[in-house]
Amino acid sequence: MDPRQVIERARAEGRAALTAPEGRLLCEAYGIATPGEGLAGSAEEAAELAGKIGLPVVLKIVSPDILHKTDAGGVLVGLRTPEEVRQGYDTILANARAHAAGARIDGVQVQQLVGGGGLEVIVGAVTDPTFGKVVAFGLGGVLVEVLKDVTFRLAPVSGDDALAMLDDIRAAEVLRGARGAEPVDRAALAALIERVGRLVTDHPEIVEVDLNPVFADARGAVAADVRILVGDRPEEVARLPREEILRQMTRIFKPRSVAVIGASAETGKIGNSVMRNLIDGGYRGRILPINPKADEIMGLPAYKSVADVPGEVDVAVFAIPAKFVAAALEEVGEKGVAGAVMIPSGFAETGNVEGQKEIVEIARRHGVRMLGPNIYGYYYTPENLCATFCTPYDVRGSVALTSQSGGIGMAILGFSRTTRMGVSAIVGVGNKADVDEDDLLTFFEQDDNTKAVAMHLEDLKDGRGFVDAARRVVRQKPVIVLKAGRTAMGARAAGSHTGALAGDDKVYDDILRQAGVVRAPGLNDMLEYARALPLMPAPQGENVVIITGAGGSGVLLSDACVDAGLTLMEIPPDLDAAFRAYIPPFGAAGNPIDITGGEPPATYENTIRLGLGDDRVHALVLGYWHTIVTPPMVFAELVARVVAEEREKGNVKPVVASLAGDTEVEEASEYLFQHGVVAYPYTTEKPVAVLGAKYRWARAAGLLR
Amino acid sequence: MDPRQVIERARAEGRAALTAPEGRLLCEAYGIATPGEGLAGSAEEAAELAGKIGLPVVLKIVSPDILHKTDAGGVLVGLRTPEEVRQGYDTILANARAHAAGARIDGVQVQQLVGGGGLEVIVGAVTDPTFGKVVAFGLGGVLVEVLKDVTFRLAPVSGDDALAMLDDIRAAEVLRGARGAEPVDRAALAALIERVGRLVTDHPEIVEVDLNPVFADARGAVAADVRILVGDRPEEVARLPREEILRQMTRIFKPRSVAVIGASAETGKIGNSVMRNLIDGGYRGRILPINPKADEIMGLPAYKSVADVPGEVDVAVFAIPAKFVAAALEEVGEKGVAGAVMIPSGFAETGNVEGQKEIVEIARRHGVRMLGPNIYGYYYTPENLCATFCTPYDVRGSVALTSQSGGIGMAILGFSRTTRMGVSAIVGVGNKADVDEDDLLTFFEQDDNTKAVAMHLEDLKDGRGFVDAARRVVRQKPVIVLKAGRTAMGARAAGSHTGALAGDDKVYDDILRQAGVVRAPGLNDMLEYARALPLMPAPQGENVVIITGAGGSGVLLSDACVDAGLTLMEIPPDLDAAFRAYIPPFGAAGNPIDITGGEPPATYENTIRLGLGDDRVHALVLGYWHTIVTPPMVFAELVARVVAEEREKGNVKPVVASLAGDTEVEEASEYLFQHGVVAYPYTTEKPVAVLGAKYRWARAAGLLR
Repeated sequence: MDPRQVIERARAEGRAALTAPEGRLLCEAYGIATPGEGLAGSAEEAAELAGKIGLPVVLKIVSPDILHKTDAGGVLVGLRTPEEVRQGYDTILANARAHAAGARIDGVQVQQLVGGGGLEVIVGAVTDPTFGKVVAFGLGGVLVEVLKDVTFRLAPVSGDDALAMLDDIRAAEVLRGARGAEPVDRAALAALIERVGRLVTDHPEIVEVDLNPVFADARGAVAADVRILVGDRPEEVARLPREEILRQMTRIFKPRSVAVIGASAETGKIGNSVMRNLIDGGYRGRILPINPKADEIMGLPAYKSVADVPGEVDVAVFAIPAKFVAAALEEVGEKGVAGAVMIPSGFAETGNVEGQKEIVEIARRHGVRMLGPNIYGYYYTPENLCATFCTPYDVRGSVALTSQSGGIGMAILGFSRTTRMGVSAIVGVGNKADVDEDDLLTFFEQDDNTKAVAMHLEDLKDGRGFVDAARRVVRQKPVIVLKAGRTAMGARAAGSHTGALAGDDKVYDDILRQAGVVRAPGLNDMLEYARALPLMPAPQGENVVIITGAGGSGVLLSDACVDAGLTLMEIPPDLDAAFRAYIPPFGAAGNPIDITGGEPPATYENTIRLGLGDDRVHALVLGYWHTIVTPPMVFAELVARVVAEEREKGNVKPVVASLAGDTEVEEASEYLFQHGVVAYPYTTEKPVAVLGAKYRWARAAGLLR
Repeated sequence: MDPRQVIERARAEGRAALTAPEGRLLCEAYGIATPGEGLAGSAEEAAELAGKIGLPVVLKIVSPDILHKTDAGGVLVGLRTPEEVRQGYDTILANARAHAAGARIDGVQVQQLVGGGGLEVIVGAVTDPTFGKVVAFGLGGVLVEVLKDVTFRLAPVSGDDALAMLDDIRAAEVLRGARGAEPVDRAALAALIERVGRLVTDHPEIVEVDLNPVFADARGAVAADVRILVGDRPEEVARLPREEILRQMTRIFKPRSVAVIGASAETGKIGNSVMRNLIDGGYRGRILPINPKADEIMGLPAYKSVADVPGEVDVAVFAIPAKFVAAALEEVGEKGVAGAVMIPSGFAETGNVEGQKEIVEIARRHGVRMLGPNIYGYYYTPENLCATFCTPYDVRGSVALTSQSGGIGMAILGFSRTTRMGVSAIVGVGNKADVDEDDLLTFFEQDDNTKAVAMHLEDLKDGRGFVDAARRVVRQKPVIVLKAGRTAMGARAAGSHTGALAGDDKVYDDILRQAGVVRAPGLNDMLEYARALPLMPAPQGENVVIITGAGGSGVLLSDACVDAGLTLMEIPPDLDAAFRAYIPPFGAAGNPIDITGGEPPATYENTIRLGLGDDRVHALVLGYWHTIVTPPMVFAELVARVVAEEREKGNVKPVVASLAGDTEVEEASEYLFQHGVVAYPYTTEKPVAVLGAKYRWARAAGLLR
């Protein structure tokens, strides 16, 4: 019987769980080793089987009527001689009959006893509501059950990913033979993980696989216990072809015409704010106010309906109450508009799930892509497009930001404005009834105006779609994600807010990392990463060097480097000598390089130039200390100049700076930022954290080593 | 033989390690259970002993000439019958003779085999260079060796602290009987930890104790293997009586007269800056310029030497090169000056260790307390005292900050100025040749101008002195510590910077927590805690409630609460109903309370008032979303007003706010801060992190529950 038949039979019989022999059969079909075993119909047969399999053995009753074998006295462990096996068979049968007189008994399973000295690990697979089939690996016992030391990957898992999983648990060292133990056969264990991934991918009806324990040792990996649950085949997620998404998104982000449904001349109305922002923002395409009661709005000819507009309309911004949306959307659909920007609230977020379903259906029927509902709108600076009821934003730059929540969108806007962060786009996705993050990623991937993407999200409609899109984008540009509902408490709040089922955060965390996404731990981190990452060139290698005027900052910067997963370069003797030539005898070379506090600008300049010019150094972290000898703006100007000059020479490396000093360091940090050097006052953590984020991306994009 | 004699004999024989029987003797004297055992001189005696102790047993060769018993075939484990014991005895003796023909053999140790089913734990003690005797506890095997899941406490350890240690490891659940196992006897295990603490406290010559493994089960805890190392008795740290420190520090912080050694009229000189800052800062005591070449400096009569000054001098600020310091300090000492503020660098930090020793010796001889050397000076705003070469700072407030590094001191100054943080003192401690953190804590403890203390430090000269002082202060006011050199890499940098031996950070972390100190993870955190903590009243209980206008912020604020170790209150039904009365039907009560985005000021006001007025709620976290209906400054003014009104009514609770919106939220946050409500724009993490810090202190001070 092939695996498909096994699963179908179980489902036909209305069973959610496969029997042990069925599970074993599936394992055999996929090359997953299980203990030697067989079914005995008599005491003599049991003893014979045990002889073939190899002693010691375990005996287990096989009966469809006895669910809890142990309670029924139906399990005996560690039988060491043929005689013990014979007696054991009789004991089990007697126990089973005493437990359930009329039970059908199919025999006694004789199973090889494994695990003597082997390491107990767990390999499993679950069906995650966001990501579908996900494979899990961890060490057995206390480590996984108490310390939750487990790692997840999307199924199927490649051989390399399976090997990486072995290193991804905190107790990874144990597999390599910690405490004098023999290391496990990593290839065999990885192969087993890979096979579980294939099994659940080939058979979507498998809801859950639990191989627990698997005994791993230097000779291989054997699944001692197999538990497989089956159920309905999950629905396939419908995905549009990439070219189609791109065509639609391009019309939305680079529209030749924008209609405003509910345009108004009355201040305070959303339809008025949207009109004003389109006009004041400097949008050069056609702006088409739609209002049944006006002939002209803000100097532009108005139309009763979008149907009346001559020529093509690319985008329709909705600024009307929820109850009027469906009818207007029908007209928009008939007109062949590419994108409906659905500002109105009053849909799923207020419990109006039906109303949201209705407009999704209308949009889908007409092939209209819908942003929202329940959003502030969107900005795309290369087109001077401010299709929003907020205020115009025009500092062009190369990061695209998206947010699922309006509040976070407003924080993005305020932060952008105050830091003069250059953006390509700011997009609200709100209820994500249609357009979601993978649609946006598909556009930003090929958008030359966008060099980095930062996304706030509470859930993912299609986890796999997101991962596929993110993986493609990450090869070229960083994708930063703030996933809210990170913690159990946070996840509960997400549930009440969006009705989205937020899975266990560890699953998100592992899979986002697997997708190469840079996860921001908090809102401010996301904003700072978004601001800083596009300014930094990609590092070419792992060697980070700290140059500091304040020894105290050097220590804190070192702490921060470790926290950020950065590697402080071991300075080679010749380079160490070269640095020493520039610093006072009581300064400390090594790394951090402590040039000491009283040094003139030349010492900063010489050491920074040395670091930028040496091919073995890949990134610089500067610690500035405010002194009269080298005032803040002198430091800022020299760093900006030296970095620019060295870039001209081809020495293109990320440089970040921490400025400790009186308030002038704020202006100096601002100056550095505006000149492409990421710099912060009063913190040793932030500059290093953003460098760490850049490194996380560079590693995911395969740029290092 | 009593423990003292055992230790003395070992030391007299030049041994660093006690023998197993010696270790056992010490354990017995302190009531630490060890396996039953005895020394057998013949095979028959061994079998007899085994019968008495209880089988199975372990046999071990006892010979001063055989160090590695196992290599010599001198250990046999798990002998189950008297016959096996007899044979085992002969085997071991034969092996030992084959291994080392001439070895003196004292017999064979017969030891009870313990551990069947018990949990393997480790209890030990080490002599830490900073903290002295420190007791360690962890789970045995992989957990402590691979995952470093271990916790430390200062010895002696009280019974309560020993019990707390059991809960302090990540795998604590295991002791409580995770996975269906029997819970261990917690009282017995705690008693064993306490006894180890007493043993090393009573006998400072014990350098290290290693009870590994200890087998713990429901019946008790037995130390299966005892390893004790002895050495020289550590030097006692000389400490001045508290009253004496207080008298000196009071003269330093509230001086009636300050002499400036090296005062100068020449701009650019340190002695000029110090003079100017004293005068411009508004110091009202006598300012005494000392300069052998001047009669008058900046309008004040100058003296050739401090000896020439009539009347008492409380403080002498040194603004002369290192080489002239010793001679001037002699004069300062002879004059009976209380404090020497040693700005000059050029001592230990540049390798001039001898020079530093010399001035310490002079200061000590005269009873002068010395701050520094190698510092920027110090500020004490209640006295308008700016004894520094930096710039005056005059925003009075209630936090005292200290820093070991000049760079960090400058960051403190810049941050204070830009945020208008009110401070009582800013103090540089530099090389800490004399005055250190515990001296300062002793002053700040009783200083009514100081409500919180924040300290940047790289090392502690006297860890126990610090812990004692901190424990006293923490009962009344928070002590925030930024310990640099937190990570292995950071610690290495600290080593090169100050020559201080930074111990393992886990030891610092556990012991600082035990002292009730709030540890800041980074520089900016320390600064924000310092700014925010004095503004917040102490919470009375653990129930935190989030009220938010943006659901998206609510989710992120919940995440932040979990990260900060805060407890989101389970809202009782009556309170839930009361909240629901104020919010739209599609808003979410529960916690976070999502009042939704479009609400007017009254909704914020009503819900905040409800939270402040209900005795079951102990702290509020507000999430503001910028809308036209409730603009930022309207929100800020209403929150400030409601909080003040409720405080008047006796509803005194910490309130923090996260503001998401356009740039006006910056002004609103600033306004709130100035009105005693901790508020930040563009971050959901920071307001919650500082509330978490306040809670950590409140718990340590015993204010909760």
